[in-house]
Amino acid sequence: MKQDTICAISTPPGSGGIAVIRLSGPKAIAIADQLFVPGKNGCPVREQASHSCQYGQLMEEADKVLDYVLLSVFRGPNSFTGEDTVEFYCHGSLFIQQRLIQLLIQLGCRQAGPGEFTQRAFLNGKMDLSQAEAVADLIAADSSSANQLALKQMRGGFSKDLADLREKLLHFVSLIELELDFSEEDLIFASRDELKKLADQLESKLSALCESFSLGNAIKNGIPVAIVGETNSGKSTLLNKLLNEDKAIVSDIHGTTRDSIEDLVSIRGLSFRFIDTAGLRKTKDRIESLGIERTYQKIEQASIILWLIDSTQLSEHIDWMADRIIPRSQGKKLLLVFNKTDKIAGEELGIVENLFAHIPGDRIQISAKYGQNIEELKSKLIELTNLPEFDKTDTIVSNIRHFEALSAGLEAIRRVREGLQQNLSGDFIAQDIRECMYHLGLITGQISNDEVLGQIFSRFCIGK
Amino acid sequence: MKQDTICAISTPPGSGGIAVIRLSGPKAIAIADQLFVPGKNGCPVREQASHSCQYGQLMEEADKVLDYVLLSVFRGPNSFTGEDTVEFYCHGSLFIQQRLIQLLIQLGCRQAGPGEFTQRAFLNGKMDLSQAEAVADLIAADSSSANQLALKQMRGGFSKDLADLREKLLHFVSLIELELDFSEEDLIFASRDELKKLADQLESKLSALCESFSLGNAIKNGIPVAIVGETNSGKSTLLNKLLNEDKAIVSDIHGTTRDSIEDLVSIRGLSFRFIDTAGLRKTKDRIESLGIERTYQKIEQASIILWLIDSTQLSEHIDWMADRIIPRSQGKKLLLVFNKTDKIAGEELGIVENLFAHIPGDRIQISAKYGQNIEELKSKLIELTNLPEFDKTDTIVSNIRHFEALSAGLEAIRRVREGLQQNLSGDFIAQDIRECMYHLGLITGQISNDEVLGQIFSRFCIGK
Repeated sequence: MKQDTICAISTPPGSGGIAVIRLSGPKAIAIADQLFVPGKNGCPVREQASHSCQYGQLMEEADKVLDYVLLSVFRGPNSFTGEDTVEFYCHGSLFIQQRLIQLLIQLGCRQAGPGEFTQRAFLNGKMDLSQAEAVADLIAADSSSANQLALKQMRGGFSKDLADLREKLLHFVSLIELELDFSEEDLIFASRDELKKLADQLESKLSALCESFSLGNAIKNGIPVAIVGETNSGKSTLLNKLLNEDKAIVSDIHGTTRDSIEDLVSIRGLSFRFIDTAGLRKTKDRIESLGIERTYQKIEQASIILWLIDSTQLSEHIDWMADRIIPRSQGKKLLLVFNKTDKIAGEELGIVENLFAHIPGDRIQISAKYGQNIEELKSKLIELTNLPEFDKTDTIVSNIRHFEALSAGLEAIRRVREGLQQNLSGDFIAQDIRECMYHLGLITGQISNDEVLGQIFSRFCIGK
Repeated sequence: MKQDTICAISTPPGSGGIAVIRLSGPKAIAIADQLFVPGKNGCPVREQASHSCQYGQLMEEADKVLDYVLLSVFRGPNSFTGEDTVEFYCHGSLFIQQRLIQLLIQLGCRQAGPGEFTQRAFLNGKMDLSQAEAVADLIAADSSSANQLALKQMRGGFSKDLADLREKLLHFVSLIELELDFSEEDLIFASRDELKKLADQLESKLSALCESFSLGNAIKNGIPVAIVGETNSGKSTLLNKLLNEDKAIVSDIHGTTRDSIEDLVSIRGLSFRFIDTAGLRKTKDRIESLGIERTYQKIEQASIILWLIDSTQLSEHIDWMADRIIPRSQGKKLLLVFNKTDKIAGEELGIVENLFAHIPGDRIQISAKYGQNIEELKSKLIELTNLPEFDKTDTIVSNIRHFEALSAGLEAIRRVREGLQQNLSGDFIAQDIRECMYHLGLITGQISNDEVLGQIFSRFCIGK
């Protein structure tokens, strides 16, 4: 356990109204006490009640005020990190933020690394490792569903279940190892029937979790939708329609960077990544052919293929396109979207639709320009993600590290089951149980090492 | 007085560990209460003690948690704004920040305009207008002295004095106006001697304040130093030396943008703006002549001219340069810096220095490359600013609005003095006293209007 006191700026980088500087560790209160002169009716930080705020002067030198600040004290173990924690809420000038960090370092604090406050919360037993990882996911979440996924994992998610099952495995492996100690006497302490039942239970749990990963990953990173279609089918009108409706509510809030979510559209709380595949058409041009090659790759990365069709045109390329799209849509959803229905009579639309009759997949009619049927299109997209009801399950894995550990644990538990069926001797079975336990322990952090922790927390922001 | 409840993100824009969302107004506590479910041993927000923090769930819907947050309550009038204020300390994802603002607006909050929290503090009598303006200065301050200047102004600075003097003027003007009411009886209520004493006092106070503006402005915006010198005199080595020494301590702190302070060097807490004047040399080239014209302008804007000299070269352009620099250094400080002293023996240096013997100004020898005498150069620059001891005076004006009001007030009080000397009738004197009072009132905000307030607070960041 680290025993030094760490400090960091916890708010986003830059200047603003308020900045939060946080310190945590055994000397947090004593160090804050040296810098803070309480206002009228206040008290020294060392006497301040836990979970209280007070106003006062932040001193740079004995007679030199640096800022007027609010200061909160959270006494361990009832704090986020489990240690004594102090937060300064100062005016958000870069000068004040940097000078305060400098003063704290002079008084013996060390500047915290990325995620180090959360790492301490983990090391002090305030949360398990998967919960700690969820803190970074929560900060990175850019849609309602990613937010909910991170919150579930923060609450414990599936890790409590795994820890329980791991406990039971430990019980069995202890008994089997006891048998090995008495191997000459051929005793059986561990009921093979009960162990088989536990292995079955674990196998079904782990395989369900592994299967949820593609979904969890899609929620976290956005569901990839490849838009194919000939030029002028109305793609940018459609994207703007989808984007604007959701973004209007946040458009005047500072800090929304339009650039980075250019094609990330949040539909009813779920992120869809719309992937531009402009350029899917017959060509003899070599460079354009390379572009089409890239389009194929994008289609393969997608989980939904949205084929946007200009209903006012009778295209000659339908079969050519179908030949290229359909073989690449295996295991994906294909959605034919007939656009510009405002410009065409029902009868003529029927003729166009007939041209696509032999092509599998769902279909929908819209007018992107006039917003007709856009809500239905959204519902269709949600439906095609095949998302189980989110609130009713805790079994969605979104973290690739968890997925890898679960997969390895699943393999090991399958070997345990096979070993039991083949009546293998206890030492073989014990080895596989230990391996399964090892992988499950990696998820919750019951098994961890500095390297793994280093990798996990390096992805955090500083100050959390 | 506005009676609605306002909300805003108060931390710098972007995502980070923690974001602070603040609300203020009569419904702040009731609205926060609807969104917050306290944790174990917690209490509803409406029952929460002022200046306390508690941990709990921030609810998006009845059964849907948006985030786990800390929440502070500050009950009016003992809050920054003077109104009931609530602060949410949430995880700093953009999604959570925006969603929370959206929820608050749905519950009846209005998104705050720039500086609106501070504006309410002013309107609720928590501070005068010059103190409110100091809040924005504090956030913008990028050096220790600008920070100290803003803090002084926040503490009241000279505005308390002005308010007292204005009060005394009010007393006299009332008496004079009473005399006018009884003008036929030729009564004297206002002692002309005492009024003269007060006018003298005001005149000396106001003129001292006006005179301090060039300094205050220099502290706030950086003291302009024009560097002149032939090419290869070592300018960039010198600037890097000055820059690095001060920046090393903050170099690993996130958010320091090197670009924007490229030539702003903080020396012992004072900002110096080093202005590049490369190109001062004899030329017949027309375009280059234009460049030199610009150099002259830069010299004229500076308050210190630093002439950097390569001591290892015997330049032939000394007199040519001196003819151009000296006439433009009237009222400024000229400092001759002999660089590269590491490469030259004392005797030879004496010869070079002799070439400059007829040129006025201070001189110093340095080696920028090896950092020799850099501390002495810094001391010299500080000395040349002629800065009065900062901690011993409250009379530095840094705000151009204050300067303009003080100048107009000074003119009016001078007319009052003249009027008294010439024994003008009471109504003329009263008019000038009223005018002086008007201008002094503008500074403290005793006189204000929506337009003035709008201009002042529009320069603030949102959330403060």
